[in-house]
Amino acid sequence: MSLLTIGTVAFDAIETPFGKTDKIVGGAAPYIALAASYFTNKINLVSVVGDDFPQNFINLLEKHGTNTEGLQIKKGEKSFFWSGKYHDDMNSRDTLATELNVLADFDPVIPKSYQDCKVLMLGNLTPTIQQTVIKRLERKPQLIVMDTMNFWMNIALDELLETLKLVDVLCINDSEARQLSGEYSLKKAANKILAMGPRYLIIKKGEHGALLFGEDQVFYAPALPLEEVFDPTGAGDTFAGGFSGYLAHSEIINFGAMKRAIIYGSALASFCVEKFGTEGIIGLSQEAIEARARQFTEMVTI
Amino acid sequence: MSLLTIGTVAFDAIETPFGKTDKIVGGAAPYIALAASYFTNKINLVSVVGDDFPQNFINLLEKHGTNTEGLQIKKGEKSFFWSGKYHDDMNSRDTLATELNVLADFDPVIPKSYQDCKVLMLGNLTPTIQQTVIKRLERKPQLIVMDTMNFWMNIALDELLETLKLVDVLCINDSEARQLSGEYSLKKAANKILAMGPRYLIIKKGEHGALLFGEDQVFYAPALPLEEVFDPTGAGDTFAGGFSGYLAHSEIINFGAMKRAIIYGSALASFCVEKFGTEGIIGLSQEAIEARARQFTEMVTI
Repeated sequence: MSLLTIGTVAFDAIETPFGKTDKIVGGAAPYIALAASYFTNKINLVSVVGDDFPQNFINLLEKHGTNTEGLQIKKGEKSFFWSGKYHDDMNSRDTLATELNVLADFDPVIPKSYQDCKVLMLGNLTPTIQQTVIKRLERKPQLIVMDTMNFWMNIALDELLETLKLVDVLCINDSEARQLSGEYSLKKAANKILAMGPRYLIIKKGEHGALLFGEDQVFYAPALPLEEVFDPTGAGDTFAGGFSGYLAHSEIINFGAMKRAIIYGSALASFCVEKFGTEGIIGLSQEAIEARARQFTEMVTI
Repeated sequence: MSLLTIGTVAFDAIETPFGKTDKIVGGAAPYIALAASYFTNKINLVSVVGDDFPQNFINLLEKHGTNTEGLQIKKGEKSFFWSGKYHDDMNSRDTLATELNVLADFDPVIPKSYQDCKVLMLGNLTPTIQQTVIKRLERKPQLIVMDTMNFWMNIALDELLETLKLVDVLCINDSEARQLSGEYSLKKAANKILAMGPRYLIIKKGEHGALLFGEDQVFYAPALPLEEVFDPTGAGDTFAGGFSGYLAHSEIINFGAMKRAIIYGSALASFCVEKFGTEGIIGLSQEAIEARARQFTEMVTI
């Protein structure tokens, strides 16, 4: 019973009000895999990199329980590169550079050993590739979670809407929920989006927590007020990884299990933003994660 | 054991994406008094209006348990008037007109019968007037709650900081907390502001809920995702009224009681924004309020 995840594996160069990095490892998939690794040790990764990608990071993923058989390494080509600069409020950012490189003609190959898939986590990528992965699985996974973003709503809405019909959980932020539904009220937005296909909708609100809609219920997970937020990059992917990793290990997958999964996803995301890149979610102890998750539940307890 | 509140009593003209009003009754004090009336029936109001103010609204306040002996009615003068237009996101607004009128030389008079005061709720006003009210009370109330805004931070910061030393609870929004403290992290901001005088700090985050800091603890109250938000005007005042009204009736005033008070304040505020002006918080049943408060606590329950 494994977690299959697809997403970018990339280099990022990040500038925040608190500092600046050279090229460091980024992309959705490393965050998802690392965060999931605290809950399940059967993680299968599908992605593509160039031969400029550091073998020691692949080793690190393997050490964190990730099978990288599905990670294509393209000889003589370069990995996907993204560079961005956060504004002072850390809630918005400018993209300075996007070099697709190997991603331009990425054709996801699912190794035979990946076919026994309980949870499929589709990291943010072109909706067409996300759909291809679903179709290349021989059996429908118990749960398909899809992350996406406004960029695809702008340039590939039809493909996105098609893919949406095939997934169980959609994970987007509040402005994306408003864009996709055309509704300002998040409650109305949720109702419209749930009618587009997914049975559950997670609306991420960054420093304001997250909402889960589904089974005619609403759950509100708070965000922990943190002393330091150094770098929001990957927080959403980390959240998705903690969420899907927790559910891959869960006996029952329903609204109740998803509530707990969201708390753990939020806890992991809170570790992520305290350091640059993936640094904050490497080598965490189970005790530290449990203590952080307790803070999330205690903070809302009357 | 009563609640004493001071705040503007005014006319508002409001435009939101959903509609437009002519002059309707507004100002901080009517929202505070109406919201508080669901928890305590001993509300003493200090404010000033012109003789253009409708007697039937004063009667309505009286019917909702508010003593208006301290409401000065200035013959031949006009009431305070504010006009504003909300942007499409409803989180920001432009002020179109502000006519101080009677407020320009307001000198708050505290009737003898108001002196037995358990909770003092200082609605948003010039910090100097807020301070005058504190000094005109013969005995220090058990709890002094102060609402203020960025406007006073910009033009009367010294007076605001002086008043802050005299209060127990400060109630501001997230951008104001950042402005007042010079810190982006709300946790750091809270630590700095608590060092300025108040023992408790409430940070209102509108559609994202509210945070309470104090006694080395943090509490996060969610906001209910609503189908309709027609008019955010007065939501903060309603929250403050529900909060202070609940505490005026509470046997013990501590962090635990404040958590419950914030839930009730949030519940009342959620009714407020569903209609224009004060309409949403007039004539509510106790059952409706309890049911709404239950939604707030159930929404965060694992």
